[in-house]
Amino acid sequence: MLVDLSVEEFSQVLGSDSPAPGGGSVAALSGTLGADLVSMVCRLSISKKGLESFENELKEIFDNAQALSKSLLKRIDLDTEAFNGVMAGFKMPKETDDEKAARRDAVQVAYKEAVQSPLGIARECLAVLRLAENLGGKSNPNTLSDLGVASQQAYAGLAGAIMNVNINLPSIKDRDFVDATLSETSTFLEDGGKIRDAVHKYVSENSV
Amino acid sequence: MLVDLSVEEFSQVLGSDSPAPGGGSVAALSGTLGADLVSMVCRLSISKKGLESFENELKEIFDNAQALSKSLLKRIDLDTEAFNGVMAGFKMPKETDDEKAARRDAVQVAYKEAVQSPLGIARECLAVLRLAENLGGKSNPNTLSDLGVASQQAYAGLAGAIMNVNINLPSIKDRDFVDATLSETSTFLEDGGKIRDAVHKYVSENSV
Repeated sequence: MLVDLSVEEFSQVLGSDSPAPGGGSVAALSGTLGADLVSMVCRLSISKKGLESFENELKEIFDNAQALSKSLLKRIDLDTEAFNGVMAGFKMPKETDDEKAARRDAVQVAYKEAVQSPLGIARECLAVLRLAENLGGKSNPNTLSDLGVASQQAYAGLAGAIMNVNINLPSIKDRDFVDATLSETSTFLEDGGKIRDAVHKYVSENSV
Repeated sequence: MLVDLSVEEFSQVLGSDSPAPGGGSVAALSGTLGADLVSMVCRLSISKKGLESFENELKEIFDNAQALSKSLLKRIDLDTEAFNGVMAGFKMPKETDDEKAARRDAVQVAYKEAVQSPLGIARECLAVLRLAENLGGKSNPNTLSDLGVASQQAYAGLAGAIMNVNINLPSIKDRDFVDATLSETSTFLEDGGKIRDAVHKYVSENSV
């Protein structure tokens, strides 16, 4: 499994001439790192003097961040498998007209299933961004830059995952599906960008 | 060493209640991932039909990406040590006026040295962004989303590292140093943001 590789080995495998792991797995890892930084900020804020009134909220954010980290970590490996179905479809026989039609249908179904992987990464990265935004004003001032990095990583994961969705849409012939997906990803990107900029502004104004 | 931890272990240590590793190491890791994706895109583009004329340039970009990946990977660990000097300064004796002055001076010198770590991460992440930008139009179309993810990761590393610079500037009393550093980081951020947006636009326009 990719997550069992050391960080150095992961870096080497990523830079190799194998297409997998690729951008999708990196997007999931980026979201994981964002979720972990949110967890760390919560841990260093819970029971901190002056932040007692946020304790319940901080614990809730922490629990959500832990769950998102676990899920996104799994997606690092899952994403490399996402397109196996598409590949399997392309390997189906295509001698007769019936075989050609069955192959075409199978590939279309597989593509729709495959884009669910990066879509799920994007959705969870957006959830991490919302947690980071929520921590504003409630967290240990010594972790301000960690909060900022958390939001940058989650946004990079979101935007990267969406590129991995969009790159595959031209292969999908169901126009309604494509339009609905494009509408979803553009909302994700807009919402995520606003949160990233808001957190960046908050961190900058409280830094210098 | 942090880079010897498995990806899963790194995620766990990051989310723990220890301040290290923190955002600085994550920014370095993000830049590393960006550099590795640039390497992968180059490897999958060199000697590819239709891209023969870019071969020398692709090889040069690849060599630079490999060097940046190695350097940024080292910075994952180095960043956790960056503030040891500041901590050592604060532990100096402060009984007499002479001791107080020596301690104050040592802390100031250590702070200036310490911000060089995230500044170096930011500088190298910007270099990765420039490589990603350079690959536009010269790389294997199948790696288009990987190129986009590379630029998102490098930008997140850049912006995250700069937050780790800026958060420490209020502790530095040398106004000229602070102003010069702020000017450098804001240029980095502006240049990096433009490249990230340009690569995103390029990937989007060629995806859907």
